[in-house]
Amino acid sequence: MSRRKPWARVKEDSVNSILVERDIGYLDVGIAPILESLNSLKGVATTSSCIGRVALVEGPFHWGRDEDSRIAYKTHSRITPEAILRVMSRGFTDLWLKATGPILHARTSSLDCALHLLGKARESGFKHSGVISHGGPGGSVVEIMSASQLSAPLIVGGVVVVRMGRDYLEALAGRANATVEEGRRRLRLLVDSLLTDPGPCG
Amino acid sequence: MSRRKPWARVKEDSVNSILVERDIGYLDVGIAPILESLNSLKGVATTSSCIGRVALVEGPFHWGRDEDSRIAYKTHSRITPEAILRVMSRGFTDLWLKATGPILHARTSSLDCALHLLGKARESGFKHSGVISHGGPGGSVVEIMSASQLSAPLIVGGVVVVRMGRDYLEALAGRANATVEEGRRRLRLLVDSLLTDPGPCG
Repeated sequence: MSRRKPWARVKEDSVNSILVERDIGYLDVGIAPILESLNSLKGVATTSSCIGRVALVEGPFHWGRDEDSRIAYKTHSRITPEAILRVMSRGFTDLWLKATGPILHARTSSLDCALHLLGKARESGFKHSGVISHGGPGGSVVEIMSASQLSAPLIVGGVVVVRMGRDYLEALAGRANATVEEGRRRLRLLVDSLLTDPGPCG
Repeated sequence: MSRRKPWARVKEDSVNSILVERDIGYLDVGIAPILESLNSLKGVATTSSCIGRVALVEGPFHWGRDEDSRIAYKTHSRITPEAILRVMSRGFTDLWLKATGPILHARTSSLDCALHLLGKARESGFKHSGVISHGGPGGSVVEIMSASQLSAPLIVGGVVVVRMGRDYLEALAGRANATVEEGRRRLRLLVDSLLTDPGPCG
């Protein structure tokens, strides 16, 4: 069962698509060096990945993408009270402030490498990571995700539930920004830990 | 590689521990029939599982359990505006309202069964599910988790960021309760789907 050639192609395709995405501006700012570090391991090929972000999401439930929720605003850097106020003034019936940590996906050359990556991810604070598929042509896919998230209703059925003054929104924005920052800190831990000990992925 | 005997013991231990937990009141209300249905499949043995809940969490970040966050209040049924007000009046510097859907863990008799369970979980809306360990004595462990979550700061560094009137807190509580309810709806979908098509777990 020689998988060397197909895996080499998976790696190559992964690296190429990152270069294409970077060139057309689809890649999150700051994520390129992290993906490059992960892809420097022979057994790892990252796919769709997000470095974490703050968004304002319209709809009764923030998780129902494509169904009844839509992103009204998003940023991969810091959100400001002014941005929150501006979007709130657009008259949405339901609006959430949502901050998420990084979500990374990586194909791996073997189940052993997938489990090694998974162990490192959990040690670095990505508690909700797991192998999400196995046995396809792209090897085992690992999803790397942490529990650091903020998802706060701002407007519920037309009722504004948060206090509107600048100081209150500043406090809320600060917590959202810190949520994203904590995810990035964990991501740096994970990359350092994997480069030091690549195990069966090296 | 006969695994029949060890797996039979894993199943037996799992079922026994559910009975013990039920008897001492550790089991979430309403979860017993769901775990029984899942464990009726030969290849599945559930372990620590939560049916979803609403909590008020003290601390700057709700996810830092054991570090600097603590649960000030929790309920597996509906939270009321009065409960939120009562806890808010206790003078916490940082407080979150947090609603989570079900989180289930299941050992499986084979990787094929784990992947089947994983596929069913994702189809039923548990998008953040994955195989979290493999190759130990308890087979492959699947974590089943959805993206339906609410985590809203109520007090940030001593600043109350939500409006305190009953109507506002009623709206916030309603969204938290609906978040938990949505997770339970998905759980029923998952159980039905697995009992209809147990695949390699049956």
